[in-house]
Amino acid sequence: MTASAKDRVLIFDTTLRDGEQCPGATMGLAEKLQVAELLDAMGVDIIEAGFPIASNGDFEAVAEIARRTQNAVVAGLARAISADIARAGEAVKQARRGRIHTFVSTSPIHLEHQMRKSEEEVLAIVHDTVTQARNLVDDVEWSGMDATRTPIDYLCRCVEVAIKAGATTINLPDTVGYATPDEYRAMFRAVRERVPNADKAIFSVHCHNDLGLAVANSIAGVEGGARQVECTLNGIGERAGNAALEEIVMALKVRGDVLPYETGVKSEMITRASRLVSAVTSFPVQYNKAIVGRNAFAHESGIHQDGMLKNNTTYEIMTPESVGVSKTSLVMGKHSGRNAFRDKLKTLGYSLSDNQIQDAFVRFKELADRKKEIFDEDIESLVDENLAGARDRMKVLSLLVVAGTIKEQIATLTLEIDGAQRTVQSNGNGPVDATFNAIKALAPHEAVLELYQVHAVTAGTDAQAEVSVRLMHDGRTFTGKGADPDTLVASAKAYLSALNKLLARGERLHAQAAE
Amino acid sequence: MTASAKDRVLIFDTTLRDGEQCPGATMGLAEKLQVAELLDAMGVDIIEAGFPIASNGDFEAVAEIARRTQNAVVAGLARAISADIARAGEAVKQARRGRIHTFVSTSPIHLEHQMRKSEEEVLAIVHDTVTQARNLVDDVEWSGMDATRTPIDYLCRCVEVAIKAGATTINLPDTVGYATPDEYRAMFRAVRERVPNADKAIFSVHCHNDLGLAVANSIAGVEGGARQVECTLNGIGERAGNAALEEIVMALKVRGDVLPYETGVKSEMITRASRLVSAVTSFPVQYNKAIVGRNAFAHESGIHQDGMLKNNTTYEIMTPESVGVSKTSLVMGKHSGRNAFRDKLKTLGYSLSDNQIQDAFVRFKELADRKKEIFDEDIESLVDENLAGARDRMKVLSLLVVAGTIKEQIATLTLEIDGAQRTVQSNGNGPVDATFNAIKALAPHEAVLELYQVHAVTAGTDAQAEVSVRLMHDGRTFTGKGADPDTLVASAKAYLSALNKLLARGERLHAQAAE
Repeated sequence: MTASAKDRVLIFDTTLRDGEQCPGATMGLAEKLQVAELLDAMGVDIIEAGFPIASNGDFEAVAEIARRTQNAVVAGLARAISADIARAGEAVKQARRGRIHTFVSTSPIHLEHQMRKSEEEVLAIVHDTVTQARNLVDDVEWSGMDATRTPIDYLCRCVEVAIKAGATTINLPDTVGYATPDEYRAMFRAVRERVPNADKAIFSVHCHNDLGLAVANSIAGVEGGARQVECTLNGIGERAGNAALEEIVMALKVRGDVLPYETGVKSEMITRASRLVSAVTSFPVQYNKAIVGRNAFAHESGIHQDGMLKNNTTYEIMTPESVGVSKTSLVMGKHSGRNAFRDKLKTLGYSLSDNQIQDAFVRFKELADRKKEIFDEDIESLVDENLAGARDRMKVLSLLVVAGTIKEQIATLTLEIDGAQRTVQSNGNGPVDATFNAIKALAPHEAVLELYQVHAVTAGTDAQAEVSVRLMHDGRTFTGKGADPDTLVASAKAYLSALNKLLARGERLHAQAAE
Repeated sequence: MTASAKDRVLIFDTTLRDGEQCPGATMGLAEKLQVAELLDAMGVDIIEAGFPIASNGDFEAVAEIARRTQNAVVAGLARAISADIARAGEAVKQARRGRIHTFVSTSPIHLEHQMRKSEEEVLAIVHDTVTQARNLVDDVEWSGMDATRTPIDYLCRCVEVAIKAGATTINLPDTVGYATPDEYRAMFRAVRERVPNADKAIFSVHCHNDLGLAVANSIAGVEGGARQVECTLNGIGERAGNAALEEIVMALKVRGDVLPYETGVKSEMITRASRLVSAVTSFPVQYNKAIVGRNAFAHESGIHQDGMLKNNTTYEIMTPESVGVSKTSLVMGKHSGRNAFRDKLKTLGYSLSDNQIQDAFVRFKELADRKKEIFDEDIESLVDENLAGARDRMKVLSLLVVAGTIKEQIATLTLEIDGAQRTVQSNGNGPVDATFNAIKALAPHEAVLELYQVHAVTAGTDAQAEVSVRLMHDGRTFTGKGADPDTLVASAKAYLSALNKLLARGERLHAQAAE
């Protein structure tokens, strides 16, 4: 099938509206502008930028995104209330292409319990609100909230009225995340068959993931005739979130053989966009989140790693590069097999005989049973006598830190370095900084601190603190951990542990060069 | 439809095998036993406890789980290798009901690139390995790895041979997460129709979530005739993970009207099980993860909150209690509407006139535009002059901390309390503990420290540290934040900020009692 034989599906991103609507995800103006700019650059067709009447902050964000966006349509949300629609119209009026998205509930349960209005009253509201919106902009989307729990006859009447009043897009959301794919596909088929003016609008899916079916439902809706998909990056949104943009885009791309649809999204920008949204919302992405989780392209099991090394299509249906990740990682752990182990050694620059590899592999399996994370330097220690035998050249003998509301914090540190005691006093901006400066004064080095993390082992303040330090030197990382009831002592131990590993490796290289 | 009219679907949990197989999720023996015990108690039908040949640790875990499990079948995984099957048989032999689960690739891409064997050779392997397993135990599962990329004719031949050799369960996994629901349903229908002895085995689905379709595919497979679902808690597993147990169980439960299947899982235990797995693997659960994410039952938007207060079925398709969460949270934020705000004030014990509420609501919206998290005490400050006007009774004048490798850390703290200066010196187990002890000495109180968290604002060690402290007093929480380049000063500021709020509230209660 050629690309031109595929139907184009519009991607309507609502990260900044439905996504931002979830508890804790509120973004500031600068953050929203950053996200919108990236969405526009990655080829999203419509950016729903906010809900202008909700607050002045929301209005400003929608208006500013409308002014700045180059290609995408910019939409503002409005309830079925005249003031909402006017405000949304004002917010999007400076967009090159602005859209008002107005919605009203159509399901009996919402009409009865929340709105307390009759079907006929709601039909009149649909007519009036869409008409008002269409008088403000040419591009009007109407949504029938809770469409999946609305009787089909009444839903068809609402859709017909909305289109007649000028709606150019009709969205039939699964607001409560209740539908199954078969139901959702059938609903679109029925509405598009039965509504006489259905061909005058583009139909849209909007799915929530309460039962884990958001992506499947979205695709089923497209099969039923929808040509717009509403979704969010990382699937953030109210409750269990919305359908994830990255999953929709990649499912259509990877399974183009049975799903003959295409989007305009540049998939290579997905990872960047996912990270930006995670950063600005402070919402972590689950490790095994499809497409964008840190494990999405990681293979640990021996059988899978073995297959991947022989031919990556054995276990990989899309390349990491296709979503902007630099390469598939073979993570070493207890499930890794001999072939992956051999490959890792090669990457680390070791060329060993089969017997040596076999011996190291047995030691590796023992280590992996005890240790959750196997770092590259752990593997090096297994095969490298210079490293394995290396005693730690430095250790902490004593540390005294004076900190608080004084101008500069002071650390007095005594280390044992190659058997000799050395003491120094250093200042710093904060007690940790002073401590690390003292280490640098005693053991000058060029490595850069890449990560500093404190984990309290239990909840109290008198708990054992556990500190991780990662140093980067010549493109290689060295990780150290330290534990102590005093966070500062734990920090010093962690830094030294990483530094000892770095020094041991340096000696090995030195020895190799001498040979 | 009555419950008895529903077909029973077996839940096969593989959190301890396929789940543990993902990078970083390795669990220790004690952790595995804890998870297995909970799985057994919650009514899972089959627990896949590990891959006995993979390591001694894995063997021990499977054997011990086999010995302890009361109700569930305990399965051990084995490749199509005689030694694997023998080892798995040994591991499960002490189970009340033990199962050997053996698998081999059936797809051309795996046969050609990974195994380098012909179709006939693989058929012989299927026969021999299932026969060997069946000689060891009565309950044998055979999986055709990469079944969804295997031509249907050859897949049927493999299945027929496996059943003839004694397999009681036939699993047809979507190993690479590639199938669509329609394809997966059709595959099961075809195999079950065409394989002459298909009625002698239970068919099983096993789906991966690479395209976000694992749950939909699992359900489609059940519609196609499968009666076992392989899944993991929180959906952990290789790459994008496996189908999530909680989503499968709740989808079948909530949509029993169109999906006439039932499981034996006690859904009220799902949240506990999810938290245990997250804790032992250190894998965070995404906030908006379906069913078990912390936002899964949280409603922030004004429209949704308004509906929820009127009738919870407006936006809730299952109750939080049904999965063991105590209650739905209405989280206050900028999207919250007037009704939710009024409800929150009532919960906090305020009864205000409509005008007062209206005024406070405007101030609330302004605050919410600026602040991501709105705590209960922020709302109290909006409506309570005693709180809003309350000046902070205490502030830090100076702090000096001496810490390090000394026996006890010492903090010397000077506070201004109600205008007067007071100084104290306290010891502690670590510098933070010493600082907080000094505060307690100067301002005795009974509140309990519930949370202490350090956030580095940027990555470096000389960055501004931001500390959050949460105190609990009389069932009410008070949250304070403090920022300073010195972590210890930031900690003191945060603690005092929480304590000032607590004191202000005490004064208000005092004033009310006097009235």
